[in-house]
Amino acid sequence: MSRAHDRIVILGLGLIGGSLARSLRSTGFCQDIIGWGHREASLRRGVELDIIDSYSLNLEEAIADADVIVVATPTLVAADMLRQLLPLLPRDGSGPVVTDVASVKGSLRQAAIEVTGGMPAQLVLGHPIAGSERSGVDASAVDLFQRHRVILTPEPDTDPAAVELVRRMWASTGAEVIDMDVNTHDSVLAATSHLPHVLAYALVDALAQSDVSENIFRFAAGGFRDFTRIASSDPVMWKDIALANREALLASLDEFNAHLMTLRAAIDSADAEALLATFTRAKAARDDFASSTAERDAP
Amino acid sequence: MSRAHDRIVILGLGLIGGSLARSLRSTGFCQDIIGWGHREASLRRGVELDIIDSYSLNLEEAIADADVIVVATPTLVAADMLRQLLPLLPRDGSGPVVTDVASVKGSLRQAAIEVTGGMPAQLVLGHPIAGSERSGVDASAVDLFQRHRVILTPEPDTDPAAVELVRRMWASTGAEVIDMDVNTHDSVLAATSHLPHVLAYALVDALAQSDVSENIFRFAAGGFRDFTRIASSDPVMWKDIALANREALLASLDEFNAHLMTLRAAIDSADAEALLATFTRAKAARDDFASSTAERDAP
Repeated sequence: MSRAHDRIVILGLGLIGGSLARSLRSTGFCQDIIGWGHREASLRRGVELDIIDSYSLNLEEAIADADVIVVATPTLVAADMLRQLLPLLPRDGSGPVVTDVASVKGSLRQAAIEVTGGMPAQLVLGHPIAGSERSGVDASAVDLFQRHRVILTPEPDTDPAAVELVRRMWASTGAEVIDMDVNTHDSVLAATSHLPHVLAYALVDALAQSDVSENIFRFAAGGFRDFTRIASSDPVMWKDIALANREALLASLDEFNAHLMTLRAAIDSADAEALLATFTRAKAARDDFASSTAERDAP
Repeated sequence: MSRAHDRIVILGLGLIGGSLARSLRSTGFCQDIIGWGHREASLRRGVELDIIDSYSLNLEEAIADADVIVVATPTLVAADMLRQLLPLLPRDGSGPVVTDVASVKGSLRQAAIEVTGGMPAQLVLGHPIAGSERSGVDASAVDLFQRHRVILTPEPDTDPAAVELVRRMWASTGAEVIDMDVNTHDSVLAATSHLPHVLAYALVDALAQSDVSENIFRFAAGGFRDFTRIASSDPVMWKDIALANREALLASLDEFNAHLMTLRAAIDSADAEALLATFTRAKAARDDFASSTAERDAP
């Protein structure tokens, strides 16, 4: 058999799970792709679209003979999913490789340790840094992960062969796969994604409740539109992420707030030099980021 | 003579002044457009591009026979410009109409009152809500103001004919012209523009100085790119604006911070309900804003 693996089971066929299935299908990375979930409509749609071969609403049935199980449910549900899934697998490392796509890794590690007494060697936590404003299997795309990054957070005891298999799976989608430790992952994501979402939500909510809110939104310009775009993200998903990554998010928020209070003091005391120094430093960092991103996004 | 006015003098021929000149030229709103500034190269370029008819480096010479004078210099320089300009004009209201394009109005009103003892009846403060990441006369565009808003902040004693003339001038560029009082203008702009810039600068600076900054910028995704785009804005201009609109900006920042601290407490105490309520409210406000903006931007 020329294929790398026989059977990949995707738990939760939404945007991410659906896109992964489309990509694995298109490259022939595996022979069978099986779906599992609570919403039969999505799974049936997956078969119609020829993204998956078949599905089951029964978890034990779905994971039978799996080589790889991908937990592609939303972040907060992912921990519960692991609590359900891990007890069904053999404890001797002979079972399938398990990975996930959640935005927070520490809470999943904790769930896995709680339920099995230690990190299973076959469990490789991962996070594709990709998404879309749309959701659901109909929004899934074969190229969603192309030129995007996927972070894997293997533990010291994780089976290297399991890590290698998950790495190859993501590499087959066109993603760049990188290792990081769990805490670094959660700090980096808190700073670059979770905190900005909280700031955008806080700003829009503050403005909407202000006494000039009608005028405020009426006269907002393009910069405001970009700045607040992420406040249109799914509230349930971001509530889940904020709670799942609570500690790292609070640390990041406090670090930001210290900087904001320093800037506030400089504005209050009309300290032109301090303002100019901070704004200049920030612009340089942002311009560097923009140019490195532009390079990355280039074909 | 069929033209509305003979002579418009533009003080400062950059992006905004140059774009206004191009538009006035294209519609024949006035007969002569005269430029004044410190940088002769920009003014010469304006003549080359046929945006202005002529220029002078001497302010008194430039404003001779003017019907309208537009102060199109940067925000912080605009106050100094008024201090120079107003003493040159007749005090009896027989002189030209004066207007400006600065982002902050209170500091200009204060400068005018300081130098003349009261708001001159011929002075109509204004602010076109338009811009570009580029600057300078070469970046100017004939349609920069089309379907954008221009806010005028007339005072009780402002000559209604002067307000009407400035309104017609901006309307001729395709802009929607709206009146607002000075304090409301400065509060609205603080909330929708000046505060978001300060937040973006503070966030990028905090991240750049954090101990995982390399990773942070390396793994930032699309949401972060949008959120921090305004941190690439001109530091000198934004230092000036932050200082010129100090009080309204501090008030807006404190209002934001109160909301952020409420959210922080909800995250800290894992109050899922409070997080969901705030995020949901903010998303609804942002979605409303996005759809009203989309309508406005439609041709």
